[in-house]
Amino acid sequence: MIIAPRSLGVTDIVPLALGSTVLGTGGGGDPYIGRLMAQQAIRECGPVTLVDPDDVPADAFVFLVGMMGAPAIMVEKLPSGKEVLEVIDVLSKNLGRKITHIGCLEAGGINAMIPIAAAARTGLPLIDADGMGRAFPELQMLLPSLDGINATPLALIDEKGNHLVLETKSNRTAEGIARGVVVEMGATATMAFYPLTGTQVRSSLVPRTFSLAYRVGLGLLQARKDHQDPVAAVATQIGGRVIFTGKVVDVMRRNVGGFHRGQASFDGTGAWSGRSLAMDFQNEFLMAKIDGATAITTPDLICIVDAQSGEPLTAEQVRYGQRLSVIGSPCYPRWRSEEGLRTVGPSYFGYDEPYSAFIA
Amino acid sequence: MIIAPRSLGVTDIVPLALGSTVLGTGGGGDPYIGRLMAQQAIRECGPVTLVDPDDVPADAFVFLVGMMGAPAIMVEKLPSGKEVLEVIDVLSKNLGRKITHIGCLEAGGINAMIPIAAAARTGLPLIDADGMGRAFPELQMLLPSLDGINATPLALIDEKGNHLVLETKSNRTAEGIARGVVVEMGATATMAFYPLTGTQVRSSLVPRTFSLAYRVGLGLLQARKDHQDPVAAVATQIGGRVIFTGKVVDVMRRNVGGFHRGQASFDGTGAWSGRSLAMDFQNEFLMAKIDGATAITTPDLICIVDAQSGEPLTAEQVRYGQRLSVIGSPCYPRWRSEEGLRTVGPSYFGYDEPYSAFIA
Repeated sequence: MIIAPRSLGVTDIVPLALGSTVLGTGGGGDPYIGRLMAQQAIRECGPVTLVDPDDVPADAFVFLVGMMGAPAIMVEKLPSGKEVLEVIDVLSKNLGRKITHIGCLEAGGINAMIPIAAAARTGLPLIDADGMGRAFPELQMLLPSLDGINATPLALIDEKGNHLVLETKSNRTAEGIARGVVVEMGATATMAFYPLTGTQVRSSLVPRTFSLAYRVGLGLLQARKDHQDPVAAVATQIGGRVIFTGKVVDVMRRNVGGFHRGQASFDGTGAWSGRSLAMDFQNEFLMAKIDGATAITTPDLICIVDAQSGEPLTAEQVRYGQRLSVIGSPCYPRWRSEEGLRTVGPSYFGYDEPYSAFIA
Repeated sequence: MIIAPRSLGVTDIVPLALGSTVLGTGGGGDPYIGRLMAQQAIRECGPVTLVDPDDVPADAFVFLVGMMGAPAIMVEKLPSGKEVLEVIDVLSKNLGRKITHIGCLEAGGINAMIPIAAAARTGLPLIDADGMGRAFPELQMLLPSLDGINATPLALIDEKGNHLVLETKSNRTAEGIARGVVVEMGATATMAFYPLTGTQVRSSLVPRTFSLAYRVGLGLLQARKDHQDPVAAVATQIGGRVIFTGKVVDVMRRNVGGFHRGQASFDGTGAWSGRSLAMDFQNEFLMAKIDGATAITTPDLICIVDAQSGEPLTAEQVRYGQRLSVIGSPCYPRWRSEEGLRTVGPSYFGYDEPYSAFIA
């Protein structure tokens, strides 16, 4: 099994960014901007050491870092790269303790790249893991929440340097308050949260997500080079299957309450000719119905890629007329537990139907 | 000139609460609840030492404390009294320094009482001053803002103990972000902010506001006792005059964006028979028009009292059918400066007319 290189250089970021965008299931922000941020940091500060979670010492001290807000707006308010260093400093100062490793909150486009940039600029090792095994829209939707780990103290900073440290009794409360702050900060902010020990890293993160992203990205690039089907390569590497291919015939979207919400409709082509798919998203793709019947729902992974090139798309990149393939893939098993489904299952997002596990 | 006693006991709180509610110009929260909180704290912990700002040493270290949010909701979510101690602790810990005195942010009903309760419970002296010389709805509307003093770091806490420390580049930004947080916290929160030195206390607060409130409250109580006109007594003690007496014929109000906003209409009685007054409020009374012509605007003080008893009313207490008197009074002179009017003048609140100084 391919794992990501233990020292990440500029060129390694290309497959990592591609694969993370697939795992981002429509969310996690613009992969192009994230890739440039990570590559620039490595160019300026040198390669990043990637460590397996099993090799993180028990007394390590880790923050998960990334951005919060509406991904469509991250493209308009480019982070400078220094926000993440400042927000780590703010939280370290609050806790009176320096971190030893950088952690990744979600395997989404920009949110997989920011920890790489942070690791390059701080010189700290990056842990080959993330909090979700995909991307989700809210900050309590990380595996550590299932283990009762507090997401706070949490630090947030905007591009002007305005910042805060929040402490709440529950992670749902932290989400509500932080979301309100992010809206006031102009719909995006950079964040450090979930202070974790090395022991907690091993018990409560999804292991080897960067390695998975690397394999997915590499598979995609290799298939293109070999004139194989890149869509099939992505589906194979992510451990899923193509559930639909079609043309986008309608997209509705709006930025509301600090989220990018909407629906997209597809008319089938090829094997799916005459059929239709309806996709809901809230930053991430939440649910796909084919001819009115639920085909796959959160927390299983719903990925959209270009039907020809296999290039993954975020929800805000989906446009009328595009020919796209939808890939489904089972989520990390712990999300299928009762507590996992209460946190990220269809009922949390207001759907009135039970979760049915997607089979690849 | 009467000044408030240098040691505030339970009975001193009665005139202080009354007078503060007059100075609150409709805002600052429910005076009854505030009075009970302050009296309870003094009963449990002993009297409060009130110090003149001129007697505060230059190296003193002070926070202003109070509540932020929609006053109408403070009545439904009673603060327990321990929030203010916790929020002082949170901010002290963040700054690595203990405070020596308690400061008052505004001379409004509940916000004049919380510093008294905090002083009783911490055993620290209370400064005979406040940040406004009245009440205003937003957190940058304190005199220290005119002197370039940062309102942050600012700590906010809700009744469940969820809390944060905010640092911003401007006080307007702090207001926007804190207001968003307060809405998420359920429309009210307890706050400590404007860390001040003793030197700043002397240069940048409105001096002797508790003494003024005490005189106003005492004048009102004495007039009732002596069967004199309590409304005239209030107007005299506050240095203003009655501009209207009438009956409330309409009130519109809503809690929006963390504020209590609305309008009230009055039909004149007695000397004002046949005339009408229209009052706008955003927590505080902002502008009064008599027969369509502006009679008084922010930042001058607009106070509403019961036409018979002289009892002051907050904006949320104004109801259809009440017979009330409106008292106008000049604001603290620094609010009439160019920068002062930019911060709290009619144009800030969206009125398209110039400020005209109210003459008592």
